[in-house]
Amino acid sequence: MKSAKFIVIEGLEGAGKSTAIRAVEQSLGNLGISQIQKTREPGGTELAEKLRSLVKEEHPGEVLQDMTELLLMYAARVQLVENIIKPALENDVWVIGDRHDMSSQAYQGGGRQIANETMSLLKQTALGCFRPNLTIYLDIEPKLGLERARGRGELDRIEKMDLGFFERTRQRYLELAKEDDSVFIVDASQSIAQVAESIDKLVTDWVQKTQ
Amino acid sequence: MKSAKFIVIEGLEGAGKSTAIRAVEQSLGNLGISQIQKTREPGGTELAEKLRSLVKEEHPGEVLQDMTELLLMYAARVQLVENIIKPALENDVWVIGDRHDMSSQAYQGGGRQIANETMSLLKQTALGCFRPNLTIYLDIEPKLGLERARGRGELDRIEKMDLGFFERTRQRYLELAKEDDSVFIVDASQSIAQVAESIDKLVTDWVQKTQ
Repeated sequence: MKSAKFIVIEGLEGAGKSTAIRAVEQSLGNLGISQIQKTREPGGTELAEKLRSLVKEEHPGEVLQDMTELLLMYAARVQLVENIIKPALENDVWVIGDRHDMSSQAYQGGGRQIANETMSLLKQTALGCFRPNLTIYLDIEPKLGLERARGRGELDRIEKMDLGFFERTRQRYLELAKEDDSVFIVDASQSIAQVAESIDKLVTDWVQKTQ
Repeated sequence: MKSAKFIVIEGLEGAGKSTAIRAVEQSLGNLGISQIQKTREPGGTELAEKLRSLVKEEHPGEVLQDMTELLLMYAARVQLVENIIKPALENDVWVIGDRHDMSSQAYQGGGRQIANETMSLLKQTALGCFRPNLTIYLDIEPKLGLERARGRGELDRIEKMDLGFFERTRQRYLELAKEDDSVFIVDASQSIAQVAESIDKLVTDWVQKTQ
């Protein structure tokens, strides 16, 4: 039986996703799991990376419609899921994702306020029943996260949205986490060391329970 | 009352869409309609043209999934409809489209065999109730159309599909035309002059009836 799993790290800008991904990788390594493919969304294939750029860059003189943004996110996701993630899992390679579908639900559904019904229809149409086995949502106050993100340099088209956008995004993240047993919330306002420790405990327990 | 309409020319490669578009423009001109915006799909805005390139070019080493192709077509279409077509119609500018949604239904639905239900869901999600007022479908045997298209030069990723793909695409075009009173079929195997004459008669009658 194939036992490789798809673990996703989710959260707002500045929540510490990169640190969390390293922590997951290390925990898996400690459990003897070293066949790991890391992905990021949107992106992760040549075409998906081009779509990432189109979504993140400014388009002077042209309104990028919310529905277009959403369709491009799914176009990139389908490329990644079908060409990279599913083949990896079938070859017993674990996958750690820097964002996945929950980001669209939170940012385009919550932040951009695209109707829930539209979000569900599109997800079902594009991905069918595919979903991560475990999602770790790094929860942070948008204000604190954005301060951290701004410290890293220039913000992209989406990162430049107003605080209300990120508050709605966080709200949707929390709602989704509450509804879904495969999503665990980690308090990302803790120190890096504390976040890494929380994740290590969470991942180790979860892997041991599910293997 | 706004009276501008959205007229679309549809058909396989080599069906003579460019000639048909000129014929429509001339017929409208003869009726005193000179405020005309021409569009092409996929494309017609800066971002939509970038998506057009991504859809048409080869992606060596990466499978472009059928669902991705479909999502990119809709992403481009939403940009065009919301940013160009709707504003034109609201400003009483007529729009002549080189392809629109019927192309996705025929190529991705018929040719690529994406399920009807998926096609309908995505159309409704992306476009709501927006649709052309008149569609002229130029019907041609795929073999003859492809010969003409090949005579024009290099074929793109979609034009390189096998004959079966174009036969399924034509089949779907014909089915859709039969179901929809706003679609008229013109025999594109006629001479250029005959096609132009058929279109002139069709457009002139239609405009006079609907104005």
